[in-house]
Amino acid sequence: MMQIDVLSLFPEMFEGVLHSSIMKKAQDQQAASFRVTDFRDYSTNKHRKVDDYPYGGGAGMVLKPEPLFAAVESLTSTSESKPRVILMCPQGERFTQKKAEELAQEQHLIFICGHYEGYDERIREHLVTDELSLGDFVLTGGEVASMAMIDSVVRLLPDVLGNDQSAVHDSFSTGMLEHPQYTRPASFNGLDVPAVLLSGNHAEIDKWREEQAFQRTAERRPELLEEAPLTEHQQKLYQQWKRKID
Amino acid sequence: MMQIDVLSLFPEMFEGVLHSSIMKKAQDQQAASFRVTDFRDYSTNKHRKVDDYPYGGGAGMVLKPEPLFAAVESLTSTSESKPRVILMCPQGERFTQKKAEELAQEQHLIFICGHYEGYDERIREHLVTDELSLGDFVLTGGEVASMAMIDSVVRLLPDVLGNDQSAVHDSFSTGMLEHPQYTRPASFNGLDVPAVLLSGNHAEIDKWREEQAFQRTAERRPELLEEAPLTEHQQKLYQQWKRKID
Repeated sequence: MMQIDVLSLFPEMFEGVLHSSIMKKAQDQQAASFRVTDFRDYSTNKHRKVDDYPYGGGAGMVLKPEPLFAAVESLTSTSESKPRVILMCPQGERFTQKKAEELAQEQHLIFICGHYEGYDERIREHLVTDELSLGDFVLTGGEVASMAMIDSVVRLLPDVLGNDQSAVHDSFSTGMLEHPQYTRPASFNGLDVPAVLLSGNHAEIDKWREEQAFQRTAERRPELLEEAPLTEHQQKLYQQWKRKID
Repeated sequence: MMQIDVLSLFPEMFEGVLHSSIMKKAQDQQAASFRVTDFRDYSTNKHRKVDDYPYGGGAGMVLKPEPLFAAVESLTSTSESKPRVILMCPQGERFTQKKAEELAQEQHLIFICGHYEGYDERIREHLVTDELSLGDFVLTGGEVASMAMIDSVVRLLPDVLGNDQSAVHDSFSTGMLEHPQYTRPASFNGLDVPAVLLSGNHAEIDKWREEQAFQRTAERRPELLEEAPLTEHQQKLYQQWKRKID
């Protein structure tokens, strides 16, 4: 079972997400165990302070090293495996599916979530193993970023996804974007489902889907086409497309 | 006041995040109003079904158009401004700080969160104005992705951020990554704060910080250096660095 710890000053933020849907299922199935710790509990200060002014001056507060070092030490004292200690940080490496797959192999993940404050550099250099960022946008804190990473890791653990939620719907699983999907009704507000999908002709349906997946990928993520394994029909489309853009 | 609506089959996931920290403050200050709607309430089906099998066959379920069209129509019936209707979708445009700034100008945002199912194409083509993705990784659903986008938009609304949480800590606000920060104690577990920061010599401190910010950016995000406004000292560092990498 994977142990997932979160260190945050806003533990209540995790209530909804860690107890719904796939996260709940992962716990019920003992694939993962979640624990959210308020690292203010590890403050050595009588006012329970966890941040302080930066040395050298400047605006903003900085998270002190002692509470976070003490919290990680406490969470790992009974642990046999060496944890990955992951700092949520806009300056970190960008989180990708590859990183999710790598983290899904671990026994113990600890996510450290700051909240507007900076981190004392000794935390980065001597406590954490990874600094990760969700992307080039600014969040109030690391909490929501850690939720996204935890979700994408946990769904990769054995037995967590059921059949109908399986990797079938993973974009990128074919190396291309997905073809359009339609369901009932066949006509809605004057908008009709493409006739080919109602035809029952599976060879035509497959051909239409391959074309649509190709076109959507060419429009939105052309760089994926260079790596994607193409069907015979898609290889012809690729030749045409190459001639057009060159 | 910005109206923010979320359409989700897991409304309970939003409890913690929308009522803590900056999101709570935004509501208390009437900068934003949040409403989470279970679009199953708009199902026209007696079993409250919102998804169905894909036309043309294949694995996975597809979200039907009727409940989402009806939900958006209901949420906008009293609204004067035209909403941005944003589909959470791994095939969408990648969310960035620029997109957050753009959305922060709107009066009404509606986030549609699917949950493993695909979307009927008529939803994409005729209901939504934007398809957005958090990055190249797979989530169980759009819920956590929408929370990240909402957080990064709401913190840009007027009066939401206080002084000590202000844009000072925004990475990217200077066009570079931040210099390292340190706070008390000056020595922790044998790890010392760099002497220059304790020197009181502000010219030397500024120089050290400029160097550190430059080095960190050069190591982690060199592409930012081409655009960033550099100080005089950093311009010299840039010339040296260019010579080294060329």
